Amino acid sequence: MLQDLADHSIDPPDRVDALDTPCLLLDEGRLDANIARMSRRLATLGVAFRPHLKTAKSLEVTRRVLTLPSGPATVSTLKEAEVFARAGVTDMIYAVGIAPAKLPRVAALRRAGIDIAIVADSRAQAAAIAAASAEGTPLPTLIEIDCDGHRSGLTPDEGEEIVAIGRLLHAAGALRGVLTHAGGSYGDRTVAEYEASAERERAAAEQAAETLRAAGLLCPVVSVGATPTALYGRDFTGVTEVRAGVFMFFDLVQAGVGVCTPEDIALSVLTTVIGHRKDRDWIIVDAGWMAMSRDLGTASQAVNQGYGLVCGPDGRPFPDLIMIAANQEHGIISRRPGSEAPIPDLPIGAKLRILPNHACATAAQHDGYVVVREGSDRTHGYWPRFRGW
Amino acid sequence: MLQDLADHSIDPPDRVDALDTPCLLLDEGRLDANIARMSRRLATLGVAFRPHLKTAKSLEVTRRVLTLPSGPATVSTLKEAEVFARAGVTDMIYAVGIAPAKLPRVAALRRAGIDIAIVADSRAQAAAIAAASAEGTPLPTLIEIDCDGHRSGLTPDEGEEIVAIGRLLHAAGALRGVLTHAGGSYGDRTVAEYEASAERERAAAEQAAETLRAAGLLCPVVSVGATPTALYGRDFTGVTEVRAGVFMFFDLVQAGVGVCTPEDIALSVLTTVIGHRKDRDWIIVDAGWMAMSRDLGTASQAVNQGYGLVCGPDGRPFPDLIMIAANQEHGIISRRPGSEAPIPDLPIGAKLRILPNHACATAAQHDGYVVVREGSDRTHGYWPRFRGW
Repeated sequence: MLQDLADHSIDPPDRVDALDTPCLLLDEGRLDANIARMSRRLATLGVAFRPHLKTAKSLEVTRRVLTLPSGPATVSTLKEAEVFARAGVTDMIYAVGIAPAKLPRVAALRRAGIDIAIVADSRAQAAAIAAASAEGTPLPTLIEIDCDGHRSGLTPDEGEEIVAIGRLLHAAGALRGVLTHAGGSYGDRTVAEYEASAERERAAAEQAAETLRAAGLLCPVVSVGATPTALYGRDFTGVTEVRAGVFMFFDLVQAGVGVCTPEDIALSVLTTVIGHRKDRDWIIVDAGWMAMSRDLGTASQAVNQGYGLVCGPDGRPFPDLIMIAANQEHGIISRRPGSEAPIPDLPIGAKLRILPNHACATAAQHDGYVVVREGSDRTHGYWPRFRGW
Repeated sequence: MLQDLADHSIDPPDRVDALDTPCLLLDEGRLDANIARMSRRLATLGVAFRPHLKTAKSLEVTRRVLTLPSGPATVSTLKEAEVFARAGVTDMIYAVGIAPAKLPRVAALRRAGIDIAIVADSRAQAAAIAAASAEGTPLPTLIEIDCDGHRSGLTPDEGEEIVAIGRLLHAAGALRGVLTHAGGSYGDRTVAEYEASAERERAAAEQAAETLRAAGLLCPVVSVGATPTALYGRDFTGVTEVRAGVFMFFDLVQAGVGVCTPEDIALSVLTTVIGHRKDRDWIIVDAGWMAMSRDLGTASQAVNQGYGLVCGPDGRPFPDLIMIAANQEHGIISRRPGSEAPIPDLPIGAKLRILPNHACATAAQHDGYVVVREGSDRTHGYWPRFRGW
């Protein structure tokens, strides 16, 4: 009889209100609109689009977002590269600085016919890549450039180091170009700031590419991108491709940055009311941090959304109702600090949808997406996710 | 040839230094010592132990932590209840307030011979439980009591409501007792505070139980517990069982509370150095928030450990070296703010281990544990985890 207990993670029921909670919903119409917005914009500007697949980690989403079934695409793990390679994606950049111990997996992908490129910002990595390339499979590499002090990379002013790495890679037949990411643009707030971040990103990549070319090295690929700069950059002169990921789902951090509205957010967590603390104006739900993630990315923004913005089952936000605290499987919902919005009457068993701070982090807490459509109370499929490295 | 790409998530290599990174390590000796410490203590005090299985979500860990293969055990999701039921655990409490829509899954478990009890703190839930119980399978229920304002539950002073719910459940043959959880004890810092939290937890549960009994209702189960109160409570008079979960792994939050030391923490994330920003004293590693989780649980403690405390590959902490920031697949390591500790020379490719803030959250980011033993450079098995609801 135990064997008969249903597996509740696949084949969701036909109706949204029959779903077990918590679960992750993906609004198909919003997804398609977000993808169309980005694709149209980059096509208008005449620059190639290399979407980042790390946000969705889903074959179904990948099929919708790629320009061609073969790519181009960006990945954040070799597991993503391997899974998407099996699904027919042949043109990828693994956009995290390479650990030398990972080079055999990269070489195996290349031997299998996958044009995967890697990223490096040190002579030590370049030497390891050159040594691995000398074994017969050149491993095309992009030199990582830091355009805003956000993370990794050489600054464009470190020309000597850029050229030294470029020469090591070139000698091994492994120099493909330069790559940068304006991670700092997530701190921007205005169109003028996005535009400035985009120009800084473009200029840093172009300067590094020109430094390599001035040293007699080829630099065919100049890769830039982040969701805000991809959406607001006005000029991609010298850039050969733009990367972006979170735009496909959007989230409250991006809404806080101002590049989307809450109505654009395609991802939400469906949850059920399981209790009340009326003395405290608390509503307790069955989505805690396990369902939402611990991401508090809006805490440093002008509007702190706590663990997420609360919507009715139709996806319409309640004014100023957020998840103020989370335990593993409990969420506490109340009004935003400072707000006097009424606490809606939500009895035990009522369903809510919570918009996430950070789509990448919330999606990673789930094994798949229940596909929904605005205005429909039915489910429209289940798209599995994968994870791991 | 693509089919030949290895699945890197199972059957780890024999040597720790050959593991793909990031990956989750579990120190078997520390796990066993942590379990022995808790079991000995509760046995000495003569109170039954009902471990919480939500931290590990692993059959192998569960086998080690349960008093008997059949239980007792605590779970945080019905998925846990279903998985552990298939593995032979027959005595469980699902310790999250019940959503009425989940009652059919509870009833299915009970019909399959599993003695699962549920939790409620409202008349609406009690009425739904009574209605479901009337269909032929009484669903034993514990009334949730709030001992410290932490989350859900009725305060012990709400005697009228406790009795009203008790009567509804009793009439349906579904009243089993009371349950409370001193979640506030995670904010304690001294032995005197743990002891006070434990006594508050015990007294709240006992008062609620006596309220039921004074109304002529039976209250056979009086269930309390949190890791700090289970480890430091001196008197469990009136209590029939103690629950705790994170003690099996421990973590930096518990070390910050003072109930363990960093040397007791059984869980760590193995990572590889992939870059440096020497101008900023940054070391970049390939474990970001995807591997660590976004949990910043020590940020409100006396010592903020950032995203985790950095150790050498042998598990020995570097003085004041922490993960100060994290992106999805990048971690930035540097000295703790205010520290002048030297930045160790860690070249590209060097391996590190990061102790997590919150074991439950970090473990949830991984599909399983690579088992390691102190003083051994070999791996000693792979224990899969599961997730979902």
